[in-house]
Amino acid sequence: MAQDVKQAALELHETLRGKIRIEPTCKIESKEDLTLIYTPGVGAVSQAIAADPSAVDRYTWRKNTVAIVSDGSAVLGLGDIGPLAVLPVLEGKSAIFKRFSGIDAIPLIIDTKDVDAFVDTVAHVAQSFGAIQMEDVSAPRCFEIERKLMERLDMPVMHDDQHGTAIVVLAGLINALKVTSRNVEGLKVVLNGAGAAGIAIARLLVDAGVKDLVMCDRTGAIYEGRDSLNDEKKEAAVFTNHEKRSGSLAEVAVGADVLIGVSAAGAFTVDLVKSMAPNPIVFALANPVPEIDPETAKAAGVAVLATGRSDYANQVNNALCYPGLFRGMLDSGVKKVTTEIKLRAAKAIAESVQDPTAEEIIPSIFQSGLHELVAASIEG
Amino acid sequence: MAQDVKQAALELHETLRGKIRIEPTCKIESKEDLTLIYTPGVGAVSQAIAADPSAVDRYTWRKNTVAIVSDGSAVLGLGDIGPLAVLPVLEGKSAIFKRFSGIDAIPLIIDTKDVDAFVDTVAHVAQSFGAIQMEDVSAPRCFEIERKLMERLDMPVMHDDQHGTAIVVLAGLINALKVTSRNVEGLKVVLNGAGAAGIAIARLLVDAGVKDLVMCDRTGAIYEGRDSLNDEKKEAAVFTNHEKRSGSLAEVAVGADVLIGVSAAGAFTVDLVKSMAPNPIVFALANPVPEIDPETAKAAGVAVLATGRSDYANQVNNALCYPGLFRGMLDSGVKKVTTEIKLRAAKAIAESVQDPTAEEIIPSIFQSGLHELVAASIEG
Repeated sequence: MAQDVKQAALELHETLRGKIRIEPTCKIESKEDLTLIYTPGVGAVSQAIAADPSAVDRYTWRKNTVAIVSDGSAVLGLGDIGPLAVLPVLEGKSAIFKRFSGIDAIPLIIDTKDVDAFVDTVAHVAQSFGAIQMEDVSAPRCFEIERKLMERLDMPVMHDDQHGTAIVVLAGLINALKVTSRNVEGLKVVLNGAGAAGIAIARLLVDAGVKDLVMCDRTGAIYEGRDSLNDEKKEAAVFTNHEKRSGSLAEVAVGADVLIGVSAAGAFTVDLVKSMAPNPIVFALANPVPEIDPETAKAAGVAVLATGRSDYANQVNNALCYPGLFRGMLDSGVKKVTTEIKLRAAKAIAESVQDPTAEEIIPSIFQSGLHELVAASIEG
Repeated sequence: MAQDVKQAALELHETLRGKIRIEPTCKIESKEDLTLIYTPGVGAVSQAIAADPSAVDRYTWRKNTVAIVSDGSAVLGLGDIGPLAVLPVLEGKSAIFKRFSGIDAIPLIIDTKDVDAFVDTVAHVAQSFGAIQMEDVSAPRCFEIERKLMERLDMPVMHDDQHGTAIVVLAGLINALKVTSRNVEGLKVVLNGAGAAGIAIARLLVDAGVKDLVMCDRTGAIYEGRDSLNDEKKEAAVFTNHEKRSGSLAEVAVGADVLIGVSAAGAFTVDLVKSMAPNPIVFALANPVPEIDPETAKAAGVAVLATGRSDYANQVNNALCYPGLFRGMLDSGVKKVTTEIKLRAAKAIAESVQDPTAEEIIPSIFQSGLHELVAASIEG
């Protein structure tokens, strides 16, 4: 990060002391006001909810709220830097939720590394909220936590680093295919990086119709029966790489149409990119430094490039997705984040770009109507 | 509650759908804004907190926040009406916190009746906040939960139904003694009701110098060695009733200067009040119907009367205390709610009434400077 951005960010945060605040929506200027919003009037509201628990969404803020939960174990690209250090990230997400879709999102640090303690804690506070967004929780714990919370809670639960990323990648890919006159049939995709985001992207691309997808980790291609695969990679080996190709990233990427990196700076060489099919599509999503320098990639013949950076075209940014996605889920009373919902959200983001070009396969977060389109896609 | 208040409260809550909301404090109008409040700029803030965890209070909203936690097991006078039914009460407290002392208070329903699960849940989310306020948790669980949280957390933890009530009662009593030209030496106090509030009031009055205090429960006076006392009443028997008086409420109240009820409608008869010392002080705090009708009490010779009701003079209302108390604790970095702090808060509330009279021993929540005085008393 540039030194001036770093300094400006620290100064702004110190001035604000909180990027969000609570505001009353009611006036409190007289004894009569207090009589209605507090005792004794509030007792009538409590009784109405006791008689019919579903009335809680008619009389309180709950239906407009999302808890953003994190243990700070995988903060941005910084790793496990402790629970307190994730709070400014959660506040940023909360501010974005309100700005782009009017949702009241509450940052909650979950101060435990134990999977079951995390799940129990979130489950015990969940009734306060309309939905749960998980953020910056490390793999493989994030998979188990999300699965257990989804089983236990009757409300949307979504790990944004997995599915938010996957949805925006799919949205970008839909438009990149248009721009390069490809379709999903016969598409050859190679994905480098088998962490939380990588596995979620692979799954959603397969759900979207990609037939030929090979994932790589540091050891190379992931295939059924390979040594030293954790449970998630074993599962991924089943739904990807049906030809059980083996070999290094450089070997399996030869002739690929699409190369997606959720790995590390420098993972994609010029030779690698040049070995791909003509007019290749490259998503180099490592943050803050992409797998290949954008200028270098263009010079090597990449037709469409996306990164995680805000200073280049086509930024894959989860904030394109989650405000509208949760808005739609809360409004329509959806209880589970299904594959169908994720596919619809991706399609809505893609369609929000009216005339996709190589420089614009992914919309700006400020694009008029974007978040409303995503929300409407959920409500179906 | 009057039918019109009930109806108006329901209508207002349905119109508002939440008495509080989250608002961003930062502008989000450009890519540059996002660069500072979210990625990549926020990474610098996360790193600064990782390097020095105390910096979290310089860069986030944490130091201005209080979690209001409840399991809904003792909601207002309505009892155990379920966790969801307490949410409008918690929202009301949050709105009051902001209105009177600028604190961002977050309602958290804790959906478990198990003491240790409650404690673990709050402990695991506590790092998100500057302090914890417990609300509407039933006795005797509230005692154990509060004790365990205070031991475990390095931040203020306070059960408002206990200590908030006790502080306001003591404030009112300080001024009632002025009005009736009594002092605390030689004062004879009888307290009816040995639940959470009753025991906390007894303890604080003793801490404030009351020597002769007898508590009663439904069985009558509580004294050391009496049958069927739970742990809290056993403890109370040690620090109250040094003469080990026994007998019914009517028997021990004869000649009392002060009678405090945190019990039930109708618990104080005219004969009971008439048997007290001349110019008696009566706090009839049962809600919504006091232990004795205010007009009846006055006719029976009560010199100073306080109730929990907003439609009579001298309302004992916790909201007189908690906004300023938590403001002071957050600002001064207090980590424990000590006896000293509670005594100071009570004195500040009492002193905020410039010329106490029988009709004004307790200030209005809207009284100019009240909450600032309470906050300043903590910082002192």
